[in-house]
Amino acid sequence: MTMEAFGEQNFGDDDEPLRWDLRPGWLSEEELAETRGRVPLLYVEALPVRTEPDGRISEVGLLLRGSATTGQITRTLVAGRVLHGETLRDALVRHLEKDLGSSAFPVVPQSIVPHAVGEYFPWPGARLQDPRQHAVSMAYVVPVAGECQPRQDALELTWLSPAEAIEPAVLAELEGGRGSLVLQLLHASGALE
Amino acid sequence: MTMEAFGEQNFGDDDEPLRWDLRPGWLSEEELAETRGRVPLLYVEALPVRTEPDGRISEVGLLLRGSATTGQITRTLVAGRVLHGETLRDALVRHLEKDLGSSAFPVVPQSIVPHAVGEYFPWPGARLQDPRQHAVSMAYVVPVAGECQPRQDALELTWLSPAEAIEPAVLAELEGGRGSLVLQLLHASGALE
Amino acid sequence: MTMEAFGEQNFGDDDEPLRWDLRPGWLSEEELAETRGRVPLLYVEALPVRTEPDGRISEVGLLLRGSATTGQITRTLVAGRVLHGETLRDALVRHLEKDLGSSAFPVVPQSIVPHAVGEYFPWPGARLQDPRQHAVSMAYVVPVAGECQPRQDALELTWLSPAEAIEPAVLAELEGGRGSLVLQLLHASGALE
Amino acid sequence: MTMEAFGEQNFGDDDEPLRWDLRPGWLSEEELAETRGRVPLLYVEALPVRTEPDGRISEVGLLLRGSATTGQITRTLVAGRVLHGETLRDALVRHLEKDLGSSAFPVVPQSIVPHAVGEYFPWPGARLQDPRQHAVSMAYVVPVAGECQPRQDALELTWLSPAEAIEPAVLAELEGGRGSLVLQLLHASGALE
Repeated sequence: MTMEAFGEQNFGDDDEPLRWDLRPGWLSEEELAETRGRVPLLYVEALPVRTEPDGRISEVGLLLRGSATTGQITRTLVAGRVLHGETLRDALVRHLEKDLGSSAFPVVPQSIVPHAVGEYFPWPGARLQDPRQHAVSMAYVVPVAGECQPRQDALELTWLSPAEAIEPAVLAELEGGRGSLVLQLLHASGALE
Repeated sequence: MTMEAFGEQNFGDDDEPLRWDLRPGWLSEEELAETRGRVPLLYVEALPVRTEPDGRISEVGLLLRGSATTGQITRTLVAGRVLHGETLRDALVRHLEKDLGSSAFPVVPQSIVPHAVGEYFPWPGARLQDPRQHAVSMAYVVPVAGECQPRQDALELTWLSPAEAIEPAVLAELEGGRGSLVLQLLHASGALE
Repeated sequence: MTMEAFGEQNFGDDDEPLRWDLRPGWLSEEELAETRGRVPLLYVEALPVRTEPDGRISEVGLLLRGSATTGQITRTLVAGRVLHGETLRDALVRHLEKDLGSSAFPVVPQSIVPHAVGEYFPWPGARLQDPRQHAVSMAYVVPVAGECQPRQDALELTWLSPAEAIEPAVLAELEGGRGSLVLQLLHASGALE
Repeated sequence: MTMEAFGEQNFGDDDEPLRWDLRPGWLSEEELAETRGRVPLLYVEALPVRTEPDGRISEVGLLLRGSATTGQITRTLVAGRVLHGETLRDALVRHLEKDLGSSAFPVVPQSIVPHAVGEYFPWPGARLQDPRQHAVSMAYVVPVAGECQPRQDALELTWLSPAEAIEPAVLAELEGGRGSLVLQLLHASGALE
């Protein structure tokens, strides 16, 4: 039994080898594939930002992720699946640490009510697309106070000004149509006020 | 193969006999049970309200649902599962019609960002409880303009003033700890301003 | 003693001749001018929308307002001052009726927490500008169910699709920089999801 | 010409001796009294909280304020007027520093859209009361990372758990009916989830 393949995913890797059988929420590739055909899968996503003392967003962090097979570089958000039995807060903290490292010191939102909701579908025509599955993500803007060191599978975290981040060329580089989600998150968080 | 049993559910019935094999999101009891052990299931919930011309909430609608086995009466919200391939909006509209009838004329929120989020776990100690599963619900306050006629499995829709709805005795009757969710929804929607 | 002049205003007319002395919140031109130099003035603004049964915003209403002196046509929102002693709800209902007529049947938001906040300053460089004053507006997205018949001083209410409304050429026609406020309101209300 | 009296105020002191004539937004007592009879005055309010690494609110800070004349002790929020020409952000930062000291390190919200809105009226029957004026406050939940040292006119900042803070006896001690505003803020920020 092999595990879910890496590298081509729109969302972060949640199902890592040798770990899944120790952690109840982790699924084998077969179980995950089967589940993906049955129900929408729940994800959390986060847009890291740096803020001024007055709360104003000064920089927006976008992950550059490389494809292991095509070499294509795309931008994405901090993202990952909510495991069975896991709270949204715990999932958010876990994926922030996974994608930004342990020194990022994220300021996790007080409320779990998301700033935006992403609905991903595997078929053409959907605004947000995930070729693997129907996924629904609770998306948050998360200020980070420390240093971000993305792990191996994310090549780089680039910081852009809010004005740069909403350039059409940048938004188009976000995988799965997430450019529209970034735009919505930045508007919701007052970054473009 | 039998279908998911009715009547004892915290959430509305999503898996109805004779229909599931015609609609891709419908699952057999076995498939649903298996899936429930693997991932959190996504639900929508709605608190129906009546509003004044100035937007103020004048009445709050709570469903009275009877248990087929124990006869116990509990209060609950409009609720149901989001099917595979179904948008949150479509799920919300479908469950509003299922629980309130076709003449309720609900004013579905413009945004799918929920007013509150419910996290249900099957184990003791959780604030919100669902004995069947880990479920996450996107909860909305939904004004209704027409007449509500709950279907058979919901005995009655009772209308209370916001002040009556937050009486501890009423909140305690809400199944699965949803009293705290109702309180949060009413605060978020300004009903207690 | 003359009253506040009409026609050149970014916000709607709040101080109408022959009425001010009968209604406590109405101020003479002198009083208003004096007050404008002392404190920020509080306004409500509303973006009228038409919605589908599933809540989706199908059309966005923008007021076309003509200048009595220059003949220039600009677009604007429903807007007006909150009078002394008046609740935000009452101000919102009053200005919706003033700008959209009595048959618009607006669905006033349940909560008075605004969907966006506009900060207007009279000096150059401000994102939102009001040459008369420092003003702060509580801005709402308001679905309308009926027919809108703007009064005389608003020439026309035009309905655009959300995609049309966010065209840069349209946003640029909104007076005082309100294009950015419209964009924020449409993102906050899920119109661009 | 004397200045606005201290000590009996529901909101913080905004008009301090010897400063008003140097700062354009500061008003003399006469000007302020006159203005208060003409338009609603705009305030910002903040509820300081301490948060866990996962964002959960662990403690709620309430100011104890003593009356110079009656000796009565009441609880209140960080609060103060928005001056002419001042942004909401600047007003919020200024009043946080005024009421919590310069080492509080508040995490000012990214967006200026408030978490709740308070409408204060000077007449009996209003939910929120300010004997001096009609005031509208933009109210925020603000995590603080540092040490809070309230200035002289606020006797003490007390930290309570969210459960303690919503005890009816505590809420009743909040001046001007702000108990309901605290409740709304705590619900909006997920502190009672």
